[in-house]
Amino acid sequence: MRAAVMYGAGDVRIEDRPDPKIVNPTDAIVRTVASCVCGSDLWPYKSMPATDTGRPMGHEFLGVVEEIGADVTHVRAGDLVVAPFTYCDNTCDYCAKGLQSSCRHGGRYGYDGVDGGQGEAVRVPQADGTLVKLPVEPDSELLPSLLALSDVMGTGHHGAVTAGVRPGDSVLVIGDGAVGLSAVIAAKRLGAEQIVLMGRHTDRTDLGREFGATDVVAERGEEGIARVRDLTGGDGVDRIVEAVGTRQSLEAAFGTITDGGTISRLGVPQYEEGPVGASMIMRNITLTGGVSPARAYIEELMPDVLSGAIRPGRVFDRTITLDEVPRAYQDMTDRRVLKALIRF
Amino acid sequence: MRAAVMYGAGDVRIEDRPDPKIVNPTDAIVRTVASCVCGSDLWPYKSMPATDTGRPMGHEFLGVVEEIGADVTHVRAGDLVVAPFTYCDNTCDYCAKGLQSSCRHGGRYGYDGVDGGQGEAVRVPQADGTLVKLPVEPDSELLPSLLALSDVMGTGHHGAVTAGVRPGDSVLVIGDGAVGLSAVIAAKRLGAEQIVLMGRHTDRTDLGREFGATDVVAERGEEGIARVRDLTGGDGVDRIVEAVGTRQSLEAAFGTITDGGTISRLGVPQYEEGPVGASMIMRNITLTGGVSPARAYIEELMPDVLSGAIRPGRVFDRTITLDEVPRAYQDMTDRRVLKALIRF
Repeated sequence: MRAAVMYGAGDVRIEDRPDPKIVNPTDAIVRTVASCVCGSDLWPYKSMPATDTGRPMGHEFLGVVEEIGADVTHVRAGDLVVAPFTYCDNTCDYCAKGLQSSCRHGGRYGYDGVDGGQGEAVRVPQADGTLVKLPVEPDSELLPSLLALSDVMGTGHHGAVTAGVRPGDSVLVIGDGAVGLSAVIAAKRLGAEQIVLMGRHTDRTDLGREFGATDVVAERGEEGIARVRDLTGGDGVDRIVEAVGTRQSLEAAFGTITDGGTISRLGVPQYEEGPVGASMIMRNITLTGGVSPARAYIEELMPDVLSGAIRPGRVFDRTITLDEVPRAYQDMTDRRVLKALIRF
Repeated sequence: MRAAVMYGAGDVRIEDRPDPKIVNPTDAIVRTVASCVCGSDLWPYKSMPATDTGRPMGHEFLGVVEEIGADVTHVRAGDLVVAPFTYCDNTCDYCAKGLQSSCRHGGRYGYDGVDGGQGEAVRVPQADGTLVKLPVEPDSELLPSLLALSDVMGTGHHGAVTAGVRPGDSVLVIGDGAVGLSAVIAAKRLGAEQIVLMGRHTDRTDLGREFGATDVVAERGEEGIARVRDLTGGDGVDRIVEAVGTRQSLEAAFGTITDGGTISRLGVPQYEEGPVGASMIMRNITLTGGVSPARAYIEELMPDVLSGAIRPGRVFDRTITLDEVPRAYQDMTDRRVLKALIRF
């Protein structure tokens, strides 16, 4: 089969790899129908040290089950399924409390002999826990939005849920990438009254407005903080979803949150230390969030995708073939593309 | 009247000050019956720069209402009342959501012309919102535990509540001071199954066991972390109340919390930056807590004090007169006294 492999910063190649085979009786082989490039793939694309072995890329995909191991009972060959961006047994104690991202038998695609999602086929470990059957045909026009359940929509939703968004809240979403835009959808879906989107790319913030953002702040730093405070009567917002991951965006969050408010972080932090001293304590600020247990949310969000109530697939602004993946990494890095959908 | 005033590190004096008078129609004058020295008073006792003017000390007190302003209707002269450690109107939007510590008309004792609690009388601003009538006589043996509602018990409870302690949880309390011990009471009251108390003073941790601690860890640093993990099957605890405020105790919290767990901080941080990088995100750790809105909890906790179900007043291990307050600061600093109760 053919798949995308990263050999270092700026070096993604499409190459022939062995067809995946069942290794454990809990595995399934999925023939990929659609996949995509993630904002988090861009971090190694900018910084990964060169290597001879390479790392299979991609962790968001849906496809058709081709073969199942002897212990798999929840899906069968021919099923169209979506995979959350980490695999999990969905039965361990962490999974039972909705933290599938910490599953005791879980892991990440592209590591430990498991294929990446940017390839023609994937061996999916813990298939019974991981894969969710989709009640549509592979040519459904809902496919992009169903693919978004694999990561960005579940991640944005995790941000809104952990930030504690409730009806009537004011919410700030920092970052106009695909996750930030999905967080706008999620905040609106949970009843937020005011949704301020902080971002500088007009085409993206325009989409954010269509998703439910009531205000857009293009300014950054102190100026951006002042603008958000102006928009919220001076006190700041109740809930923040921070979907960038830089120290500057964290400081924007602390500068715009109201006393007693909650900041949820989704972006992988590009820093080790943060400003969690006396001010955070005096003001009772909560810092939460993390890697989304996307598997936990698929059943909850899917009905709204199927009904058309939410359309997270609109974050895909380019559809490409596998051969075009290396260029998509560069186009997304250069902000020429928001998120590329790969069709197989 | 006579009151305790701090003039710098190690310099607490008892001196004559003007008797408090009603300034605003929302004020009340309270004649102090009992007060105490707080662990947080020891930070300026160690570090406050010398000053000529001095700062009236103390913020935990109960007493008898002597006089009320024209607008005060909830209490009257002769009532025995307890005051939470910050005053508040208890009606603003922050108070309405249970964040009396951020009240729009609130403030701290000993600042802005308001007396401290370690003195014979106190002008209490926002008396209607602040003061809570006690259904006992001034000679009640419950007085120490009712005084604890002013700060330590409400603070320990805030830690357990914001950490999200639920029946069956494992909880770690870091710190065997009066707040840590109160957090043990609170965690047990909320149904925690395992309560590990981290502290090195046997007399205090013994009291912690009586309050409900199931395990005591005297070790610190990596050794302490390993001990707590051993006690919890390797995974760490569900909830942590951090009642010390040092960087080392924060690191102990991050080292012992389970994936998806919550760390609530109560100690005033003696640091500006904390380790909130990738590991916190990968493990979905929540950092919360802060200054307790003690006023919010008084009605909830008082029945359990009156019934004897909880006895937080046991943290007072010495009863002193006002003249003995300067020595009590030193004795508490030297860990000869856990918490001193001042009787007037």
